[in-house]
Amino acid sequence: MTAWVKAAEAALDAAGAAIRPYFRTGITADLKSDASPVTLADKLAETIIRQHLTAAFPTYGFMGEEFPATSGTARYVWVVDPIDGTRAFITGRPSFCTLLGLLEDGVPILGLIDQPITGERWIGGRDVPASLRNPLGGCIGTRTVTALNEAELSSTAPEMFVGDGAARFARLQAHCRRTYWGGDAYAYGLLAIGQVDIVAECGLKPWDWAALAPVIEAAGGVVTDWSGEKLRLGCDGSVLAAANPALHAAALAVL
Amino acid sequence: MTAWVKAAEAALDAAGAAIRPYFRTGITADLKSDASPVTLADKLAETIIRQHLTAAFPTYGFMGEEFPATSGTARYVWVVDPIDGTRAFITGRPSFCTLLGLLEDGVPILGLIDQPITGERWIGGRDVPASLRNPLGGCIGTRTVTALNEAELSSTAPEMFVGDGAARFARLQAHCRRTYWGGDAYAYGLLAIGQVDIVAECGLKPWDWAALAPVIEAAGGVVTDWSGEKLRLGCDGSVLAAANPALHAAALAVL
Repeated sequence: MTAWVKAAEAALDAAGAAIRPYFRTGITADLKSDASPVTLADKLAETIIRQHLTAAFPTYGFMGEEFPATSGTARYVWVVDPIDGTRAFITGRPSFCTLLGLLEDGVPILGLIDQPITGERWIGGRDVPASLRNPLGGCIGTRTVTALNEAELSSTAPEMFVGDGAARFARLQAHCRRTYWGGDAYAYGLLAIGQVDIVAECGLKPWDWAALAPVIEAAGGVVTDWSGEKLRLGCDGSVLAAANPALHAAALAVL
Repeated sequence: MTAWVKAAEAALDAAGAAIRPYFRTGITADLKSDASPVTLADKLAETIIRQHLTAAFPTYGFMGEEFPATSGTARYVWVVDPIDGTRAFITGRPSFCTLLGLLEDGVPILGLIDQPITGERWIGGRDVPASLRNPLGGCIGTRTVTALNEAELSSTAPEMFVGDGAARFARLQAHCRRTYWGGDAYAYGLLAIGQVDIVAECGLKPWDWAALAPVIEAAGGVVTDWSGEKLRLGCDGSVLAAANPALHAAALAVL
């Protein structure tokens, strides 16, 4: 694990250096063009991370949001979202994240959540205690609250819930103390430091969830899909993350 | 104006120092109790700002979210929201703001938006050019985009729109390129630096809007209520902020 973490951190350091010059710039940028700064930042960061990790682990697979996967059937596969939270990034909010996860036989075993503007970085995984580099304060550890009506719920946007998913989320929302909209992957980092208690979302891709589950589990939380199954390649993209097993069970029962 | 700005900045410096120790703490805090850290931070910050400003301007009125107003009918009234974005604050997001505005005959003429964790501070007003202390990057100036379908829309939460307001906001949302949920006052700061183009909200109190309008107007934007009237004491709490007059007119027509 040490070699994995070391290589992953170096890759994120380099990606962050590439992303930062694009933050809060391009006031008149055409965001629809493939050559837009946002897409450039995405592609640059993913390319840099891929170069670092394929050099260090040439037999591993690599799966990212921006380019086709390579050796996706290898036992170990790195999974990257270079900029999770595109809307946050293009509106100048320091809540987008670079996500990097490692799958073993399709199951996430190591995750890193990086915010290159504030310098926050969460790391956690199987046999890797959760850690946090956090210039803004806070420390690792999920909350012990087990009652839904004392729980802070967070989710990126109401538009992500359609049909049955919308009704199920509304039910969960009605049981929780408060809902905070926005945040993307950042909300999962906040869950790992006991500021948010539940995150429920739908339609996530492997690069959205691969990094999050190991961090939260290493911090004391539980992450599954909305059926209570552990996340793995091929899951339906629904995600329910909660601060502890009892709260997760309560949320799952309502969903 | 110089004396106002200097006193306001000193008050915000002191309030920020009082708020920071409460950020990302209190994992098991009871947030329903009046003695909760959040409420303590709110009250502490408002008290500190009030002390600073009433010492410097003893004949002025003072209006805040946490305590009864004093001399609210004076010609000049300071208006304070010690922590705008309570949900952001209690979930560890550095997007809550301390807001400080100055009213002259009920009309806001000076505003300061302060984010005590990141160190960001926007200032602007009548005869006060917009300025920004911004360790995260970005610079003052709204965007020149005039077409709604190129505009980034931002709003705190869908729950703030009820009845007719919900239908009107949905219409605006359908015309804009994208919607970002979350952000509270921080979204108005992002508008002043050209990252967000429109913010539309309802149910705002004087301490929510008094600081925002002068900053955005000094940065090139336009702020009114949903009827197109300038904000002033007694307005209905609807707010439409846009990057420039043409975009504002287009948004108003759709609302």
